Amino acid sequence: MKKIGNQTFKLDNPVTILETASIVGKKEADGPLAKYFDVCLEDEFFGEKTWEKAESKMIKTSIETVLKKSKVPVSSIDFLFAGDLLNQCISSSFGIRDFEIPFLGIFGACSTFVEGLLLGSLLLDGGAGNYGIAATSSHFCSAEKQFRFPLELGNQRPPTSQWTVTGSAAAVLAKDGLGPYITHLTPGKIVDKGIKDANNMGSAMAPAAISTIITHLKDTGRSPTYYDAIITGDLGHIGKGIVLELSKAEGYQLNSVYNDCGVLMFDKDKQDTHSGGSGCACCGTVFSGYFYNQLKQKKIKRMLLVATGALMNSTSSQQGESIPGIAHAVSIEL
Amino acid sequence: MKKIGNQTFKLDNPVTILETASIVGKKEADGPLAKYFDVCLEDEFFGEKTWEKAESKMIKTSIETVLKKSKVPVSSIDFLFAGDLLNQCISSSFGIRDFEIPFLGIFGACSTFVEGLLLGSLLLDGGAGNYGIAATSSHFCSAEKQFRFPLELGNQRPPTSQWTVTGSAAAVLAKDGLGPYITHLTPGKIVDKGIKDANNMGSAMAPAAISTIITHLKDTGRSPTYYDAIITGDLGHIGKGIVLELSKAEGYQLNSVYNDCGVLMFDKDKQDTHSGGSGCACCGTVFSGYFYNQLKQKKIKRMLLVATGALMNSTSSQQGESIPGIAHAVSIEL
Repeated sequence: MKKIGNQTFKLDNPVTILETASIVGKKEADGPLAKYFDVCLEDEFFGEKTWEKAESKMIKTSIETVLKKSKVPVSSIDFLFAGDLLNQCISSSFGIRDFEIPFLGIFGACSTFVEGLLLGSLLLDGGAGNYGIAATSSHFCSAEKQFRFPLELGNQRPPTSQWTVTGSAAAVLAKDGLGPYITHLTPGKIVDKGIKDANNMGSAMAPAAISTIITHLKDTGRSPTYYDAIITGDLGHIGKGIVLELSKAEGYQLNSVYNDCGVLMFDKDKQDTHSGGSGCACCGTVFSGYFYNQLKQKKIKRMLLVATGALMNSTSSQQGESIPGIAHAVSIEL
Repeated sequence: MKKIGNQTFKLDNPVTILETASIVGKKEADGPLAKYFDVCLEDEFFGEKTWEKAESKMIKTSIETVLKKSKVPVSSIDFLFAGDLLNQCISSSFGIRDFEIPFLGIFGACSTFVEGLLLGSLLLDGGAGNYGIAATSSHFCSAEKQFRFPLELGNQRPPTSQWTVTGSAAAVLAKDGLGPYITHLTPGKIVDKGIKDANNMGSAMAPAAISTIITHLKDTGRSPTYYDAIITGDLGHIGKGIVLELSKAEGYQLNSVYNDCGVLMFDKDKQDTHSGGSGCACCGTVFSGYFYNQLKQKKIKRMLLVATGALMNSTSSQQGESIPGIAHAVSIEL
């Protein structure tokens, strides 16, 4: 690989996204993208006694599914990157413990899936084996319970709030293959513009997305329309508006190619999800379901996938801290 | 790099650990290794209002210190790996947000420091720039509060319990340099033998350490005495005993070269830390302080550093789950 510009890496041997898998909850299965997901659950428990165990079972299922679809034996997987929103990423560790795969835990909040694609690509291009997996999960109930209020309270949600996607996604990366290829990677820097409202994550994370997108375009010398699609992970309707407005102010017209997985996941009018979807699984499942399908069908030939994360917890908010954001980007081309 | 055996990578261009920095709390500064640490704090607050903010300030300070010691300008650092024990790794994100460095969050519980060394080495050997940083932190007070009981309760601690090290460590990795070199890496698989006692982490993590050590020795064809030191991260006295006993049962005599950072950090008789030190900073500071000094002075010429992590949280324990362990190893040679 070669570093180009300030913080972008160009791979010598583009890595193939060999296969993806996605599993979602009932609300996501009622949304406009339902037909693209591999597994749609009927309830939030997935046969388990707790939401945390259900989330672990989802990530286990998405990895089993992607292994089956890719036909790569588990013994041929050289490493697995995964992380999630639960404290100490327990969805990943409990979901993954039965696989005999070297495991590297990552935490990028909702940017985790793309962080996994990015690190997996760097490792494979560098020679660390033939196959890697990137996986993540999130669960509306376990996330609300942990970050906000007990669901049983029935608290009202402000219009700026987003709906954590219940689901899991996994992708098998291959050193050799026929694409879609990960060609360029831009890891992000932390951006914190002082937003403190934990019910307005889109606003907190949008500046990091803008920073990474513009850095990527500058580093590669590409214009926004080089891409058929520039897609952020879970900024939702409010964050999407901020990205369009602030990138325009910096001289970048993204309108024609830009959208957000959190906007695409739910029907804003019918599903009462306010500013849209969020969570690690938002970007993960919308990419692994919808966008991977579009790439395979050649309806999209070049996309920049930019996942954002809010690097806070409930204690930091209680202690008056603002919300540091981050965004990692991978360029995916046929 | 080249994959050798089942799960070990041999670097083509061994990566230099250019410099390390360590900062510790008062109790650690009263222990036998005090003179090896760069900064010793006088209290647990470090001038901040909360333990979490103090921990963030420690990781910020250790990175500032290692940058200063290494004389590498911050703008030359290509990436930074960091993570910690706080929910959603907020010590790292808040401590790092002021640095303008591409940030990749990792979570390996107490294995985080070695996971950072391992990933940083893979990236640099693969061509992803010239310099990287691996950093971590932990804090006795923030960890007890989060994982066990409020400190104000004054709960008794069982003899199997360990004392979370208050501190932070950071290392600058360089593509080119004069060593000490990271030459081989063995990322670990999750091992869960069913231990459920959150006050007996050494027992929960020891099987993962044994698995990674023996895999590394088999993959490289080395005997234990190839190394001057095989050092685990924070198994403590009980975990150390288990490693010696179970590895012997599998035909590996580690006695003459094996020790544990959690055993070395505190004086068992005088400091009332029961089974020894633990936490991300245990392996981080003992390596960055004591062992890096020994390597630079050529008193140790070959060491295998094996950090272990317990991938659980308080919710998983409350829900009756056992404790999945993991261990990552890096081979460091002159």
